[in-house]
Amino acid sequence: MPKAVCLLSGGLDSSTCLALARQQGFECYALSFDYGQRHRIEIEAAARVAATLGAIRHVTLKIDLRAFGGSALTDDIAVPKGRSVESMGEGIPVTYVPARNTIFLACSLAWAETLEAADIFLGVNAIDYSGYPDCRPEFIEAFEHTANLATRAGVEGRTRVRIHTPLIRLSKADIVRLGHDLGLDFGLTWSCYDPLPGPASCGACDSCLLRAKGFQEAGIEDPLGRRQ
Amino acid sequence: MPKAVCLLSGGLDSSTCLALARQQGFECYALSFDYGQRHRIEIEAAARVAATLGAIRHVTLKIDLRAFGGSALTDDIAVPKGRSVESMGEGIPVTYVPARNTIFLACSLAWAETLEAADIFLGVNAIDYSGYPDCRPEFIEAFEHTANLATRAGVEGRTRVRIHTPLIRLSKADIVRLGHDLGLDFGLTWSCYDPLPGPASCGACDSCLLRAKGFQEAGIEDPLGRRQ
Repeated sequence: MPKAVCLLSGGLDSSTCLALARQQGFECYALSFDYGQRHRIEIEAAARVAATLGAIRHVTLKIDLRAFGGSALTDDIAVPKGRSVESMGEGIPVTYVPARNTIFLACSLAWAETLEAADIFLGVNAIDYSGYPDCRPEFIEAFEHTANLATRAGVEGRTRVRIHTPLIRLSKADIVRLGHDLGLDFGLTWSCYDPLPGPASCGACDSCLLRAKGFQEAGIEDPLGRRQ
Repeated sequence: MPKAVCLLSGGLDSSTCLALARQQGFECYALSFDYGQRHRIEIEAAARVAATLGAIRHVTLKIDLRAFGGSALTDDIAVPKGRSVESMGEGIPVTYVPARNTIFLACSLAWAETLEAADIFLGVNAIDYSGYPDCRPEFIEAFEHTANLATRAGVEGRTRVRIHTPLIRLSKADIVRLGHDLGLDFGLTWSCYDPLPGPASCGACDSCLLRAKGFQEAGIEDPLGRRQ
């Protein structure tokens, strides 16, 4: 079985992406980050998802991005609530974490190289999303090109690194349907950026609103919603 | 003064690069990494150099790349000794750390974005070097392109990120001459990959041999050498 490094936040998208990589026959090495995010609880979700979906290994790498700040997810900046889903693609909100996907992809590239894996999976989405620049197809293509120059593979012409983003052009409802068809237990995942004590989802941040829209349009009940 | 993020290992090249950025009128934010390297002593050198050269801030970010392994600098793999300098550009030695410069540049990009800095300095060299893929000009160009798609700047068309690599085509002797002309105290720096107790440089790893060649060809005495 070919090996793949799968970036896994523990949310809906990355968990569905991991389930898809498994279904496509990859031996999956799941990679999560403890980066100082206020929704640190997602790391526990990632561990549950990795174990349930049969990842060979799950590494949670610690990089304290609070050293740089500049985001509502890592800094003392309020997480926006109640935005309309339609407006989310316009402009970049304060929940954007500077260069986060570049850092995550760079680390996944390091692991892929030591594993001699040619495949990296990333559950980014550029349809029902918050307008983050590092979720767009042109960024992914540029990173893939860079990755193939950055490593032994680029010099020795052995493996060609491929960044798989199978969800990038799906709607959130499509992602819910796909995860459902793959048998993913959505109750294992976590999406909320700004958890309430409990823990419970806030129900009003971009991530909660996009998730709710996805389940509603797919006509599937969110098991996480039921538990709150 | 324009702001710049300067990657700083504490070695000869990155210290000269920081001195050059300062001379060119940049307000410098120095960034170092505690990544599980066996020559962790270089972090102390970086702190000395950053302070002496007047960096506005110096952040040492911890990312434990031992989680991925695959390098003599982070793993229990012997550091090659006594290689001829001429052969170093051929093939990639075991001291190569997978995707290291991609990770370092990604982190510098995050900081640059929060600082609203358009300039990143990296002291890579592709002449007197160990053949690492992520020191080559084509890698740097690809990363710069990616960086400009990865960030707010890429979407909003504000700042254009520039990766400066002023040493990339210099010989090690040229770098020594440049650092000397800039008044850099080379005694503050550290190059050895595999320090002996003391601490003292091993004198036989690629990094020691390249440093020695540079000082010798420049006709300048290495103050670090004198202290061993």
